[in-house]
Amino acid sequence: MADPRFHGSSEPIALARLARIIGASLARAADPEQPVDDVAPLDDAGPEHLSFFDNRKYLDSLRRTRAGAVVLAEGFRDQAPAGAALLVADRPYHAYALAARAFHPIQAVSRPGVSADAHVDAGARLGEGCQVDPGAVVAAGAVIGRRCRIRANAVIGENVVIGDDCDIGATASLSHCIIGDRVILHPGACIGQDGFGFAQGAEGHLKVPQLGRVIVEDDVEVGANSSIDRGSGPDTIIGRGCKIDNLVQIAHNVRLGAGCLIVAQVGISGSTQVGDYAVLAGQVGLAGHLKIGKQAVLAAKSGVHADVPAGETYGGIPAIPIRQWRRMVAAMARLGRDGRGEGG
Amino acid sequence: MADPRFHGSSEPIALARLARIIGASLARAADPEQPVDDVAPLDDAGPEHLSFFDNRKYLDSLRRTRAGAVVLAEGFRDQAPAGAALLVADRPYHAYALAARAFHPIQAVSRPGVSADAHVDAGARLGEGCQVDPGAVVAAGAVIGRRCRIRANAVIGENVVIGDDCDIGATASLSHCIIGDRVILHPGACIGQDGFGFAQGAEGHLKVPQLGRVIVEDDVEVGANSSIDRGSGPDTIIGRGCKIDNLVQIAHNVRLGAGCLIVAQVGISGSTQVGDYAVLAGQVGLAGHLKIGKQAVLAAKSGVHADVPAGETYGGIPAIPIRQWRRMVAAMARLGRDGRGEGG
Amino acid sequence: MADPRFHGSSEPIALARLARIIGASLARAADPEQPVDDVAPLDDAGPEHLSFFDNRKYLDSLRRTRAGAVVLAEGFRDQAPAGAALLVADRPYHAYALAARAFHPIQAVSRPGVSADAHVDAGARLGEGCQVDPGAVVAAGAVIGRRCRIRANAVIGENVVIGDDCDIGATASLSHCIIGDRVILHPGACIGQDGFGFAQGAEGHLKVPQLGRVIVEDDVEVGANSSIDRGSGPDTIIGRGCKIDNLVQIAHNVRLGAGCLIVAQVGISGSTQVGDYAVLAGQVGLAGHLKIGKQAVLAAKSGVHADVPAGETYGGIPAIPIRQWRRMVAAMARLGRDGRGEGG
Repeated sequence: MADPRFHGSSEPIALARLARIIGASLARAADPEQPVDDVAPLDDAGPEHLSFFDNRKYLDSLRRTRAGAVVLAEGFRDQAPAGAALLVADRPYHAYALAARAFHPIQAVSRPGVSADAHVDAGARLGEGCQVDPGAVVAAGAVIGRRCRIRANAVIGENVVIGDDCDIGATASLSHCIIGDRVILHPGACIGQDGFGFAQGAEGHLKVPQLGRVIVEDDVEVGANSSIDRGSGPDTIIGRGCKIDNLVQIAHNVRLGAGCLIVAQVGISGSTQVGDYAVLAGQVGLAGHLKIGKQAVLAAKSGVHADVPAGETYGGIPAIPIRQWRRMVAAMARLGRDGRGEGG
Repeated sequence: MADPRFHGSSEPIALARLARIIGASLARAADPEQPVDDVAPLDDAGPEHLSFFDNRKYLDSLRRTRAGAVVLAEGFRDQAPAGAALLVADRPYHAYALAARAFHPIQAVSRPGVSADAHVDAGARLGEGCQVDPGAVVAAGAVIGRRCRIRANAVIGENVVIGDDCDIGATASLSHCIIGDRVILHPGACIGQDGFGFAQGAEGHLKVPQLGRVIVEDDVEVGANSSIDRGSGPDTIIGRGCKIDNLVQIAHNVRLGAGCLIVAQVGISGSTQVGDYAVLAGQVGLAGHLKIGKQAVLAAKSGVHADVPAGETYGGIPAIPIRQWRRMVAAMARLGRDGRGEGG
Repeated sequence: MADPRFHGSSEPIALARLARIIGASLARAADPEQPVDDVAPLDDAGPEHLSFFDNRKYLDSLRRTRAGAVVLAEGFRDQAPAGAALLVADRPYHAYALAARAFHPIQAVSRPGVSADAHVDAGARLGEGCQVDPGAVVAAGAVIGRRCRIRANAVIGENVVIGDDCDIGATASLSHCIIGDRVILHPGACIGQDGFGFAQGAEGHLKVPQLGRVIVEDDVEVGANSSIDRGSGPDTIIGRGCKIDNLVQIAHNVRLGAGCLIVAQVGISGSTQVGDYAVLAGQVGLAGHLKIGKQAVLAAKSGVHADVPAGETYGGIPAIPIRQWRRMVAAMARLGRDGRGEGG
């Protein structure tokens, strides 16, 4: 289904083998040798495709799909068209992800080698199997691991360290940082520049040297045009497995624990610490010097000015426990419906 | 008036001819052959310039202007200085735009040709009349139409398709996308990278291959450092004539209808659909899987968590009909003035 | 303390000399000749380091520090460990900044010269002592002062003017602008592209030529991936000494006075004027055509739709005087605690 110009051609996989790969059970009498050519969305899939269902909003699409096979949860078996083979999984989206990866392996390097139009300094070191695209710049002292892709017009600054199997996006810019293994930086991401540090004064704002680094641990992904400033003295640290979306701002000295999800346009101010597996929804803003507990969740657009306990969900500006915020919103809506305000 | 270093020199146009070009009527006895050299703002214009008035905030500037000619609406004729020729138009800003375009035609290509310092793969195709600037990278399989400008250090990824008369800004990055005619991408815009798709789990977040594309229809403009992710399976679609400002985030599978105005720092979450000619003001955030109706308007900083009907104006977090929001704000302001809170 | 791979090695400075450099008084009997090797954070410093204390949140760190010397305010002398030399200053952070600059001078150029892999047009002029890194593009007519650094893959457009001692970050993009002395642009910053100007209409949105420039005065700093559009006719002006953080949007015709602090992800709409030394905290949004007075302060996430008087602090959406906003928030929180809403 995927456009082969951009995603390559996938090899067919027999249904039974696919079920094993994705950890699903073949729920309906179906030919275990039935070939599946690729994954596709419910609305677009044909008999040769595997699709998935994981959001009740798309129940109509499930009922109408022409997909040859569908991954879904046990409770929705009756909703799929009679003709479709069913693969039942506890976590259908996770199972779908495994299927998509089976058809389209995630692999940064396509043709190892350094383009004649790349600018790799003689004092830089590249591991085996790297691919450096035209216009990429790798400065002196940089140390890059094995099987990394440095895409077109990316800039790897002096003495930057990058681990194995990383994918550095086009026009990304790195300096003053140590990057782990299997890190993906999308286009335009900026890592390691000066933090926003000034000693304010009526005579002008005195720039404070930013003497730390950015440490990006293994399996991190950073979105397009996001920026992560280096520490002012301590380091800025992005924990293992964090996934950071586009246009996110992470200030100096911030520490993210493992596995945080940071959605687009979030801003985290200086020296704030975020616990493991916290989730910051879109456009959240965090003040500086805070502690956000493990697995805390911050609703979209929250403005956080105080610590948030582990495991709690907060929302609002300023952010408060989400139940309290919902009550407040309901009460405010009543105020709006009263019609006594001058705006009515 | 425009600095000729940056905007070239404009040729004089006689007043009567200018009035015809912009669809205005010459409202005062004036020499129809009076030459106009260029456009200029009310405050800066001299006798050789055409200026415009379209915002009551600048009525003082209108009264004081030294402009030789002014475009304005019928109702403001009396406010202009006696010496100025007047061009009356129903939509003065639109008429001004036509005048500015007459003096300064919008044209991406200035000197056709491929710079010796550009990196155009032998397997890419360029239409006639293109200009490719130094450091630009055009990868294998890319197909670019006629009279396109690919500016310095822009990156056109493998198999990307671009129509005619496009202007791809410096350091912009494109992959996995099909671009129409007369599309303008400003510097740093990132189109086509992976969406933010992970199957979450306590054992880590599993990256889901993003198998769609970005389709950018004709006459779209995308601002500096904005990012548009490709679809996860379906495509991300930017409808004909959409104008997208700077630092905007558009997630995977979003569909914008025709002519939407998306102001700076807006974020649109995955799979949300926005109807034709909707207006999203600055810093608006939309949750995923929503439907925003045609010609809906979302006030600045709104946070939208539910569908918005066509033609309606909503505001607030969460967004509600704007009249209700105004009443609510007025009621809340009364609470603030009461002085009984601990913050007082 | 700073990683020498990224920050170079610092030369030791005797304690008494350091006190003179930073304008502090040596407050405890200490060996004036005691050498200090570098600055370091309280938690990481050793006997060879100078650290600083300026935020009560870190009082425990002060009490436990192993730093050989600490800069602090008079009132906290008793809190520092007995072994540490104390440098007392009225503004400890300012004094620390001077110390950090003494050990790590801020200097853009490290090795003057133009890289063989840079693309400097024959019609561009570079002052003495500049350093142009690989992949940087300097177009025809550009005029660059002395001792400037143009980092890798940055793009300096046609006829752009840059003063002395500027630092233009990797992948930054400049056009239609005049830049002063000692200006720092971080990676990915975009200066001078078209503003978001369209004459709206049901038949489509007509692009309005943007005929102004961006004027960036001396000592300005612009953060990573920020964007500053050029004026539509008037210029966009960034006043002397303004410090702009990452991912900030500044629209056409905006005028910032001297010394403004614009924190990350702020958006300023077209033609708004901001007075000297105003402070806009993170994610603030300003509507267009406003006047924000000198030294006004806008709290994080404020949405500003009306003028703000000089010297006042505003917060909220829409922004109101901060005391009023605090009272309102307190009153709203009581509504949330009442538990009568349907969200409870």
